[in-house]
Amino acid sequence: MSEQNVSFQELVRECALIGTSAAVLGWDQETYMPEDASGFRAEQLSWLSAQAHQRATSPQWADALEAAVQSCDEKDLAERANLFEMKRRYELATKLPVELVAREAKVSSHAKRAWMEARKENDFAKFLPHLAELVEIAREKAERWGYTDEPYDALLSCHERGATTAMLSGLFDTLRPQLSGIARAAVERSRDRARPLPAGPYPLAQQMILNEKIARDIGYSFAAGRIDTTTHPFCTTLGPCDVRLTTRYDESDFCSSLFGVLHEAGHGMYEQGLPGDRPGMAAGDAVSLGIHESQSRLWENHVGRSRAFWEKWYPQAVSLFPQLQTFSLDDFMSHVHQANFSLIRVESDEATYDLHIMLRFLLEKKIFRSELALADLPAAWNELFVELFGMTPPDDAHGCLQDIHWSMGAFGYFPTYTLGNLHASQLIHAARQDSTIRDGMDSAQYGPLLAWLRENIHRHGALWDPAELIRRATGSEPEAQYHLAHLSSRYVGV
Amino acid sequence: MSEQNVSFQELVRECALIGTSAAVLGWDQETYMPEDASGFRAEQLSWLSAQAHQRATSPQWADALEAAVQSCDEKDLAERANLFEMKRRYELATKLPVELVAREAKVSSHAKRAWMEARKENDFAKFLPHLAELVEIAREKAERWGYTDEPYDALLSCHERGATTAMLSGLFDTLRPQLSGIARAAVERSRDRARPLPAGPYPLAQQMILNEKIARDIGYSFAAGRIDTTTHPFCTTLGPCDVRLTTRYDESDFCSSLFGVLHEAGHGMYEQGLPGDRPGMAAGDAVSLGIHESQSRLWENHVGRSRAFWEKWYPQAVSLFPQLQTFSLDDFMSHVHQANFSLIRVESDEATYDLHIMLRFLLEKKIFRSELALADLPAAWNELFVELFGMTPPDDAHGCLQDIHWSMGAFGYFPTYTLGNLHASQLIHAARQDSTIRDGMDSAQYGPLLAWLRENIHRHGALWDPAELIRRATGSEPEAQYHLAHLSSRYVGV
Repeated sequence: MSEQNVSFQELVRECALIGTSAAVLGWDQETYMPEDASGFRAEQLSWLSAQAHQRATSPQWADALEAAVQSCDEKDLAERANLFEMKRRYELATKLPVELVAREAKVSSHAKRAWMEARKENDFAKFLPHLAELVEIAREKAERWGYTDEPYDALLSCHERGATTAMLSGLFDTLRPQLSGIARAAVERSRDRARPLPAGPYPLAQQMILNEKIARDIGYSFAAGRIDTTTHPFCTTLGPCDVRLTTRYDESDFCSSLFGVLHEAGHGMYEQGLPGDRPGMAAGDAVSLGIHESQSRLWENHVGRSRAFWEKWYPQAVSLFPQLQTFSLDDFMSHVHQANFSLIRVESDEATYDLHIMLRFLLEKKIFRSELALADLPAAWNELFVELFGMTPPDDAHGCLQDIHWSMGAFGYFPTYTLGNLHASQLIHAARQDSTIRDGMDSAQYGPLLAWLRENIHRHGALWDPAELIRRATGSEPEAQYHLAHLSSRYVGV
Repeated sequence: MSEQNVSFQELVRECALIGTSAAVLGWDQETYMPEDASGFRAEQLSWLSAQAHQRATSPQWADALEAAVQSCDEKDLAERANLFEMKRRYELATKLPVELVAREAKVSSHAKRAWMEARKENDFAKFLPHLAELVEIAREKAERWGYTDEPYDALLSCHERGATTAMLSGLFDTLRPQLSGIARAAVERSRDRARPLPAGPYPLAQQMILNEKIARDIGYSFAAGRIDTTTHPFCTTLGPCDVRLTTRYDESDFCSSLFGVLHEAGHGMYEQGLPGDRPGMAAGDAVSLGIHESQSRLWENHVGRSRAFWEKWYPQAVSLFPQLQTFSLDDFMSHVHQANFSLIRVESDEATYDLHIMLRFLLEKKIFRSELALADLPAAWNELFVELFGMTPPDDAHGCLQDIHWSMGAFGYFPTYTLGNLHASQLIHAARQDSTIRDGMDSAQYGPLLAWLRENIHRHGALWDPAELIRRATGSEPEAQYHLAHLSSRYVGV
């Protein structure tokens, strides 16, 4: 390795040290920090973030990167892919003028407050001017970053490398006709079958025991991780061997914390499976939100909501929670497969979730194609909601004001949730072609499945575009059919 | 405030942000960090520490400090004291050449391993060459820092600003004749009276309830702090409103965690009482180890081992731990006032503790006066131990190899423990001249006492030398008589 290359390595490693130090402070802020510390903590985090940003956007960084590119062996395709992605990130970071970044930070900070008020008072008009400004900033970002077909592509691609409006439109066009039907059938069947879970309390200490046992069993490493408690569950990486999860507990329903843990452990095992030897490099980094979500959904839904999984674990749950003794495994599976049309995305289930995303994608697409005036957003939301769910939101607080994302200027983010679901189904379909993996899953032994994910997804870091990663892992383009087949088989029984 | 002054403020604040960020990572390392993360955590901490060190020893720092001194109002005595101390710290940090600092780090890292082996194998010879090198380095540091009377002064003063060999010799000379007598009487009385605490288990969850209740009651703020569990109890400051304690639990003795909490809460309330508006400045910093220890000992011993305290809290302990029902308050007070001659400093009690420190002070003084060859240290230790305790250590592992301090090159550190005890007794004596404080203490209400400490100790940060701080707070020089009187009254009953 040439001297220049070492020097880029060193710069990147330093940035990773800074970024992960900030992650420790961020984790502490959400878990254990005493309340009066928040003001100073914000200052600490802002200092660290400025240090990392300064370095990663400096001319020194660009020069070292360029030198690394020049001295990279032509035949070392992985390293070329690594440096190519590092260059893309540098450009994403430097193509935006400092004033624009500062303006966005300021506007979104005001917008978040305005959104909270607007939602509370059910008054879209209060949020509208802020939203308009954020859309305008997003448009300017798209222009600065550049795109081939349309501005929305640039916004999609900053969350999901290589994703385009055309690609997502294709996927949602395939999903739309069948998904509504599946969802409706699932809701009807669930209405007939589902029995409420026996009353709590499901003691927290017992929930923790079960969650930890299961997380360990599916392959999440506690030598390089832990589970804590927060209001909003998350997974965060504090270093190459330090990937932590959180969940929240509901004494009346142990499934709430458990499925939270399965979801976050999916994220966590992806992070634990990334190459740890070059922190901060694309080669050692997660590639996209969609691929990340594919891992969480895979463990939460394909594994965690499967009958084979519960054939192993339900007896243990019954011994921890005696009130389950009168609730059969069949009863429990109906509970786990409950489907309902919900007004609120975050409360929705596996069968109906992607309808919520579809709605947001269609609206965002129209906004950035200038086919929808922001003032008309509430009406457009409600109209589409009726089409997809057969009911009208009672107000905007339960409609277009429900999500935090737009108040943060995060346009093009929602579709990554559905990409996660589609990829998860496609990956599971491909993995199950291997009889060892299939037999393992059918007896709730997930070693072979995790090994396959490590080999086909985790170890590649961010070297290839998500679509290419899926292609290499499954042999076909990202497609919607696998997910439709999965939902149909689980929720409609065909 | 002039522009230069603002700029020094900014540099100092930045350094405080870095130092406290490192403190967050350090706290996490001791409390919750998963085991595999330790290698990368060391890199994160080393980056942060280098950033802080670079800044605090840079010419820019010196220039800004000088500018601040030049523009400081002559009449602003507090600010002059603040800048004077910042200058002293800058000099302490910059008077040592980089090579010496690097050499010390390397030598002490080897020495620590050698000491652990030597202690394990009871083989002083293994540690001797490392100790010799560390003493040589300490001598060089003393020469570089400078001193008036003798090299040991410089080492004392780096832990305890302004402390000298002469001053400490005076204090220990007063202590020595009476302390041995008090200790012997205390041990004898304790042998007659002490009854063992009823058998455990004292459940951890109940211990935590009692500890938190008491810590809150004496004035430790949980809005700016918390208590976690570690092998070695400590107190650490993560920001102006974030001062955390740890303790360890023993299911067979609830006193172990409780006195740990009282001790650390004493440190914690001092930190919580420091001015929080200028983090990193001497004005907002603890002044010395001795003053810090005076606060921890005050709450642990003067408050926590007093009968008034337990008249309030013992009934609550009994209701949490039913096995105490047959153990009277008198029994319990005898347990709390147990005194024994121990070979090991960290296992010793209030009545005998300072004898252990005296021994170390006398030996260190001889070493740095070149009156004691290091090879003769074990014999000298044992000889003095017989004089002070009336018994001979069975081996060096229970003698001169027992403490970690020398293996870290921390010479001149031990005396701060006794300074803490002396100051605590002197402060309590002065505070109790106020009838509100006295009445409060006698009914286990500590608001007035804490207010007095805030006013007379905490709020002054590191503006004045420890001895000056004691003089201002109590009206007299640091003296040993108050501590002798306290021990005598508690342990000999006169």
